[in-house]
Amino acid sequence: MKLYSIKKVGIVGVGFMAGSLALALKESFSNISISGYARSKESYLKLKKLRILDKIERDLSKVVKDADMVILAMPVGAIVDYLKPLSGLLKKGAIVLDLGSSKRLISNAAKKHLGKKAVFIGCHPLCGSEKSGPGSSCKDLYKDSICLITADATDPGIKVVKKLWQGVGSKVVFINPDFHDKVLSSVSHFPHVISFILTYLVPENYHRFASGSFKDLTRISGSSAYVWADIFLSNKDNLLKDAEAFIRALRGFTDTLKKGDRERIVKFIKKVNYKNSKISKL
Amino acid sequence: MKLYSIKKVGIVGVGFMAGSLALALKESFSNISISGYARSKESYLKLKKLRILDKIERDLSKVVKDADMVILAMPVGAIVDYLKPLSGLLKKGAIVLDLGSSKRLISNAAKKHLGKKAVFIGCHPLCGSEKSGPGSSCKDLYKDSICLITADATDPGIKVVKKLWQGVGSKVVFINPDFHDKVLSSVSHFPHVISFILTYLVPENYHRFASGSFKDLTRISGSSAYVWADIFLSNKDNLLKDAEAFIRALRGFTDTLKKGDRERIVKFIKKVNYKNSKISKL
Repeated sequence: MKLYSIKKVGIVGVGFMAGSLALALKESFSNISISGYARSKESYLKLKKLRILDKIERDLSKVVKDADMVILAMPVGAIVDYLKPLSGLLKKGAIVLDLGSSKRLISNAAKKHLGKKAVFIGCHPLCGSEKSGPGSSCKDLYKDSICLITADATDPGIKVVKKLWQGVGSKVVFINPDFHDKVLSSVSHFPHVISFILTYLVPENYHRFASGSFKDLTRISGSSAYVWADIFLSNKDNLLKDAEAFIRALRGFTDTLKKGDRERIVKFIKKVNYKNSKISKL
Repeated sequence: MKLYSIKKVGIVGVGFMAGSLALALKESFSNISISGYARSKESYLKLKKLRILDKIERDLSKVVKDADMVILAMPVGAIVDYLKPLSGLLKKGAIVLDLGSSKRLISNAAKKHLGKKAVFIGCHPLCGSEKSGPGSSCKDLYKDSICLITADATDPGIKVVKKLWQGVGSKVVFINPDFHDKVLSSVSHFPHVISFILTYLVPENYHRFASGSFKDLTRISGSSAYVWADIFLSNKDNLLKDAEAFIRALRGFTDTLKKGDRERIVKFIKKVNYKNSKISKL
């Protein structure tokens, strides 16, 4: 299967997500050559050794200038920072997509810096992991996952990007950038804050008494500091609202607990159980 | 293998935990007969049909009076409530153990009501689940798990109870009831509060955008309302302290976020990553 006229793909930010995507693209599409940018000598040597990509370049322009499609897979802040220098290097009409976990900032920066020089399409594949680094790449990462696309189904370039994600096994859902960031704050970004804080607070000598519940809640606290600092900062307003709502609800719970109001606690948990049953079915 | 001189075991509160324990005991020990108490006609018929136990009785005294060992597997509040009426029914020298998830209240009530009429040993197997009901019973539930025992290794009856847990595959750890409740608040009870509140707050129409992290953090919000209301109420003081510490830490995080202090957020997450790496190895 071919990805329409896309032949050359350039990747900036070859970590776990992009490495996995490169493997999946090579498996799903024929006639595609993928090159990647290595910022340091060290990562150049590492990527050479891993043999995930067809070409590794230490010169950004070599990765970008002939590419029909450029994939940006750095932390959110870096994506925003690279959009300006990239705009001068891109082939006219190239499709640019990113894999960032927050979309409003990136979407605004792309509008500002790329304008009509390229077709920008924001993507957020919902299959992150606490893993990081290209060495962990896994060609099945995107299978049976959802990819959120912050564009309209009729935008130019959508056909190609949709086929790309469907080709690697993702279901595509369209969403606007503001709503994306609000929802993702609630179902992912703020849960990460919770997990980081829980791990931070529990003394190490308690770990041996932990069972499955603690491991479940702290698993994602192994997630990359650079990636998540950027996500948090780029989605600050929504996160602050979610944090306030959480504190309010927690205070409500502790007030009920102080009063010893068993009936109300049971009622609350039953309501939650019902909601949980819908999540379990996802 | 025999469980020393234990031949008759009586269970009060035949749900998922006790049902699983009964299956495991029958598999690991010979010459043991297990009977269970059914409070309602409905649960009597259900238990009869499930054939997990050798005998089901609707009369509590029949389950208890000849038993060499009585296992209490109700929610914490019910265990405390049953200790007084039980004390008049028990065979002299019977071993009584419970599976409650908080230990201080139960331990105090046992001292008060059983005194020297029976040998009470508080147990907390760390392998709960969001499952409930005897129909979900699983004979391997206790394999490779830890069972906390709130007694001294030299107390009478310990030899038997230790062999019981080791026989079903658990590692036994001795701990005092107060420290148990403090630790368990941090690694289990408060994480359940967090999970309940998170599920409560996130709107249902956001669920479709949730990935693994949200499912991890909300899995235990399916846990039984009656069981957990009792655990929360019986471990109120520790929970209130954990909630305050959590709110303080969350406020610290949001202050840093408001300031946009990226460096400090990165440093915080890196510290957490390090701690998480120790949990992952558990």
